[in-house]
Amino acid sequence: MIAGKRIAILGAGLIGASWTSLFHHYGADVAVWDPQKGARDALAARMKKPLSHLDELNGKGTPRGPLTVTDDLTKALDGAVLVQENAPESVPIKHDLYRQVERLAPETAIVASSTSALTWSDLATAFADPSRFITAHPFNPPHLIPLVELYGKDTDPLNQADAIYRAVGRHPVRLKRDATGHIANRLASALWREAVNIVAEGIADVAAVDAALVDGPGLRWSVLGAHMAYHLGGGPDGMAGYLAHLGPSQERRWATLGSPSLTDDVCAALIQGVHQEAADRDILTLETARDQALIAALKARKESGPI
Amino acid sequence: MIAGKRIAILGAGLIGASWTSLFHHYGADVAVWDPQKGARDALAARMKKPLSHLDELNGKGTPRGPLTVTDDLTKALDGAVLVQENAPESVPIKHDLYRQVERLAPETAIVASSTSALTWSDLATAFADPSRFITAHPFNPPHLIPLVELYGKDTDPLNQADAIYRAVGRHPVRLKRDATGHIANRLASALWREAVNIVAEGIADVAAVDAALVDGPGLRWSVLGAHMAYHLGGGPDGMAGYLAHLGPSQERRWATLGSPSLTDDVCAALIQGVHQEAADRDILTLETARDQALIAALKARKESGPI
Repeated sequence: MIAGKRIAILGAGLIGASWTSLFHHYGADVAVWDPQKGARDALAARMKKPLSHLDELNGKGTPRGPLTVTDDLTKALDGAVLVQENAPESVPIKHDLYRQVERLAPETAIVASSTSALTWSDLATAFADPSRFITAHPFNPPHLIPLVELYGKDTDPLNQADAIYRAVGRHPVRLKRDATGHIANRLASALWREAVNIVAEGIADVAAVDAALVDGPGLRWSVLGAHMAYHLGGGPDGMAGYLAHLGPSQERRWATLGSPSLTDDVCAALIQGVHQEAADRDILTLETARDQALIAALKARKESGPI
Repeated sequence: MIAGKRIAILGAGLIGASWTSLFHHYGADVAVWDPQKGARDALAARMKKPLSHLDELNGKGTPRGPLTVTDDLTKALDGAVLVQENAPESVPIKHDLYRQVERLAPETAIVASSTSALTWSDLATAFADPSRFITAHPFNPPHLIPLVELYGKDTDPLNQADAIYRAVGRHPVRLKRDATGHIANRLASALWREAVNIVAEGIADVAAVDAALVDGPGLRWSVLGAHMAYHLGGGPDGMAGYLAHLGPSQERRWATLGSPSLTDDVCAALIQGVHQEAADRDILTLETARDQALIAALKARKESGPI
């Protein structure tokens, strides 16, 4: 379904390399554009691990597609059905790029931004016609984590993008309006605020907070959402029962959650705590362990997935 | 290691039945006390699914231990090394029970409360000598989710309890001081507040929020904690690099997170949204799907677990 279709990836950094690996693995005709020679030269090396992860997860059934790496934007955009932009998180840089893309890309191409920190409204103003512009935010690492958060004004390009992302094994989710942090990073930020607070208040140390999350709610949220969890915790009446009996106690608990500041002392406790948790494992070792655990978790979903 | 040791389970409700199944599966000599005939009579039925889950997860290698069900507290406590209390979440009910337990249990027994809503300080005052009293909060469903959150004043009983929980496949985590909601429910409450806010503010609907969590941060938090995730997101300097470069933007994001109230309108949106997400699946069907997905995720951890 995706095989042979031209996907243009703009920006060959870590996120770009992950998207490239994903579309390449599924047989798309991928053209990667990056103005920096260093990034273009590093791409093959950056794709090595993602490609081996995808082979491990899905097997090598689908032949990989053609791959072009170029500093020529016209060439990269030629015939593209989807343009996935991963430029630096700067409004002027992205706006400048979009003006060129709008001139050079096929009229039918969807232009999707991987932006994490910016919103559709921040970015769309660069387009004379923003109807085919969407935000499509992946979650790191994008070739393993299925989530892509979509927002745009027009339904048709969203539906087309949805089908393209599904064809490469992603699970797109739609926002009804744009919001900083989309959905997932808002949730992650809210949770981390309390995770920092627990350390700052001396309730538990960094490693204990992480272990409690991974062996408790994190594990549960890998199979059912936070709303659904309370639906199942509400007895025979589900969410209605939960809200009637325990809604007031949740509101009281919300009032007791912390609003920490990242003071020097708090930062020192976080840095020291995470080093203690990591023991003598360096970042690369930890990343490798994360990726292997994610691959095992994703394989398990083929047996019995989220509800 | 646990085989033949007497574990007293006080309260044969859902949590008590889950604990009972777990210790029984691992060969302990379990005595379940409940003053209500209905609860005692329902226990065998309540244990059926947990026991089959545990067989599916671990095989039937270890012979199950002896099981006593009684309304006689003296009999249940006889020779107990651990007393796991799962009485209703009421201070007077628990205090009354503790006074009896302190009189009747072996002096060496650890008395552990499964309490979710109350703290060690709320409960310990019932004991003449609270040195062997701890809180040991499991996460639902306790026979599948590994987390047990421990707090107590004395190290020795905590270490003994730690060893007992590990012998039945649990992963105990220690608090440094007691706090309402321990660690995991504080984190869950903080995340759910923003999950409710996203629905209340019209950013996304209930099903989209749950899908974003399950296919994004939930999946990631099943393999690494929130602190560790930022350590890996900080470049070569890890958490120090993250805090230096992105700490200020996290603080700005925290300021934009919502403080929703559970108004009638918000409750109606949550109830309607979760029913839409559930489609025509009833609570039992959803629970069964959750348990199967948890078992698959836990099996995957045997291949490659959290970092």
